[in-house]
Amino acid sequence: MSDHSDAMQACLDACLHCYRTCLGMLSGHCLETGGRHVEPEHVRLMLACAEACRASAQMMLIGSPVHRHQCGACAEICAACARSCEAVGGMESCVAACRACERECRAMAA
Amino acid sequence: MSDHSDAMQACLDACLHCYRTCLGMLSGHCLETGGRHVEPEHVRLMLACAEACRASAQMMLIGSPVHRHQCGACAEICAACARSCEAVGGMESCVAACRACERECRAMAA
Amino acid sequence: MSDHSDAMQACLDACLHCYRTCLGMLSGHCLETGGRHVEPEHVRLMLACAEACRASAQMMLIGSPVHRHQCGACAEICAACARSCEAVGGMESCVAACRACERECRAMAA
Amino acid sequence: MSDHSDAMQACLDACLHCYRTCLGMLSGHCLETGGRHVEPEHVRLMLACAEACRASAQMMLIGSPVHRHQCGACAEICAACARSCEAVGGMESCVAACRACERECRAMAA
Repeated sequence: MSDHSDAMQACLDACLHCYRTCLGMLSGHCLETGGRHVEPEHVRLMLACAEACRASAQMMLIGSPVHRHQCGACAEICAACARSCEAVGGMESCVAACRACERECRAMAA
Repeated sequence: MSDHSDAMQACLDACLHCYRTCLGMLSGHCLETGGRHVEPEHVRLMLACAEACRASAQMMLIGSPVHRHQCGACAEICAACARSCEAVGGMESCVAACRACERECRAMAA
Repeated sequence: MSDHSDAMQACLDACLHCYRTCLGMLSGHCLETGGRHVEPEHVRLMLACAEACRASAQMMLIGSPVHRHQCGACAEICAACARSCEAVGGMESCVAACRACERECRAMAA
Repeated sequence: MSDHSDAMQACLDACLHCYRTCLGMLSGHCLETGGRHVEPEHVRLMLACAEACRASAQMMLIGSPVHRHQCGACAEICAACARSCEAVGGMESCVAACRACERECRAMAA
């Protein structure tokens, strides 16, 4: 039980960190920088990733076992966002947050 | 392309309808009725289902292809919520909304 | 009581319509059009307006009397988004949705 | 500018802490304890407060100046939730989180 709680706490922290990083970087960095940073698919992925992380955090706080389905989806979306951020370049903090969240979410979804 | 848009529109409508039904029934019916309607796992599922539907709607509005991962998770969570509502009883509108949303989300996720 | 419910239903509908319009137009129109449509303050307002409407809808569905504070904030944010959309131009559906939501939310907040 | 950013960071932290505390306590404490803890108006306020804090955090991350309207609404809702938690009793962590968030949000709204 406490192992479970520790793992969920780590995943919750990773989701909220990735949420803050993606949404904050989109507004504070991508919109200001322009060019490839506002390419529609990249902006959409950043917004979708922020939402996936936020929904995963919400469901872990609610504490229903169905959060594992949400975490499974979140892992895939974080992986896609990390790839988009790598392709755009200069978004290392976002790549790191997405990769960390992907890892924690895969563990919760298993 | 327009077929795709029609299917997404139907799924978006189903998600927002299920979101409204689950959250509205939880507050206006389950909390007032008490007893089995406020059994923790049932309340958690109703809240988790509302959130899953809301996140799916958000991602379809954003329009990133990753919405299919979210819709896949949403289908599973709607199925679980429908079963919980059937077990509690007297929640036909919620069962119907969850089943309809599950069906549309499975089609989007495929 | 039923008057109250009718007014809340109208406000809930207006909020969800404005939410869908703002987020859908941002992704499907502004990001594709570029130029003034992706000017940072405009994109931020569109995203903030979608979130304000979404939170107002959530609180009306929850049914707590504190939703009137949220509706009051939403009215101000919708008004600001409508002005930004008018300044950018070619966003009539968004202006109309924001103005309608502003009006319903002011009535709920009063 | 850096003072502004420091204040917003403190408010963002307070909002996300209050969000986690209210939603986590509702599910992990109130639903399990029952009795006064699941009285409809209390549950609704806990859910509404979690949503207000979440929307405020979202708008500060987006970075639009309209976040001050959302923070003003959030302060009122946090104050109402703190009073409800005090009346129910045994919810000191929730009262503290709501009071802290109310204070930071009033400063942002000013």
